[in-house]
Amino acid sequence: MTVSKTAVADHGKARKEAADDQTAEALQLGELSGLLGYSLKRAQLKIFEDFLRCVAPLQLTPAQFSVLLLLEKNPGRNQTEIANTLGILRPNFVAMLDGLESRDLCTRMRSANDRRSHVLLLTDKGRAVLARAKKLVAAKHEARLNELLGPANRAALLAMLTRIATEF
Amino acid sequence: MTVSKTAVADHGKARKEAADDQTAEALQLGELSGLLGYSLKRAQLKIFEDFLRCVAPLQLTPAQFSVLLLLEKNPGRNQTEIANTLGILRPNFVAMLDGLESRDLCTRMRSANDRRSHVLLLTDKGRAVLARAKKLVAAKHEARLNELLGPANRAALLAMLTRIATEF
Repeated sequence: MTVSKTAVADHGKARKEAADDQTAEALQLGELSGLLGYSLKRAQLKIFEDFLRCVAPLQLTPAQFSVLLLLEKNPGRNQTEIANTLGILRPNFVAMLDGLESRDLCTRMRSANDRRSHVLLLTDKGRAVLARAKKLVAAKHEARLNELLGPANRAALLAMLTRIATEF
Repeated sequence: MTVSKTAVADHGKARKEAADDQTAEALQLGELSGLLGYSLKRAQLKIFEDFLRCVAPLQLTPAQFSVLLLLEKNPGRNQTEIANTLGILRPNFVAMLDGLESRDLCTRMRSANDRRSHVLLLTDKGRAVLARAKKLVAAKHEARLNELLGPANRAALLAMLTRIATEF
């Protein structure tokens, strides 16, 4: 242990003076604000929070929405293919499917050509919930993002993110 | 349950034929590839993976690196202030501090002016590890990102992400 008690007392004094001033002194981000990874994570958390608010009536997380979209576009693919495509770890994915299946949004069925494998399909209810979710996402979530960034910047941002995801 | 067995059998047949062709047919992302939240998450995962590889000799996660950077810039602030600034939930943050403290990278001390509160400080070892981590991040991680995007695009990306994190 290599920190002097004097240093702590000094900092404590500075904090107390700040508190006495009734000013909540904001922390200095320093180099953090220049790191792409940090900014990506903060932006992603903000966007996920807004997504959850916009889709709250349907109780869907961004990950669940992604799974439903992928099942709609690729019916009858197996669990491993869907999980791998989304980069979701197997135990997490199984738990997520249990949740979606218990709400009758999707279903697992034994594959006709490989009895050891399960294929995934949207149910009619899953299709209806997904259609409503798409409308909420477009009308609220994506519309607000478009308003903040402008369509050209939004497109440029999407292109750079896709480049990082596929080429980095 | 509203999915016909015929549909499953058809999909199974298509999959078997694809497998017979020895071609692993990629899934169609469809609307997913146009969603900013999805692309942000994929890019963020990619960047975090690369960060972990680049800083592997020091065994630091991106979140631990952020905490050390913030402690260096803001010595003697309390746990709540650091956790809130980084948007880390309290139980996760306490577990992370336990890990950093057990490796003698930072230390918790009772505040001189409020005995119920703990202030956080880097140790000398923490300062040395952070200095090495900064060099690895700059020379490997950020340099590769710069190479991929170019400095102007990198700056534009950072500005848009910061805007989302602060204004969305």
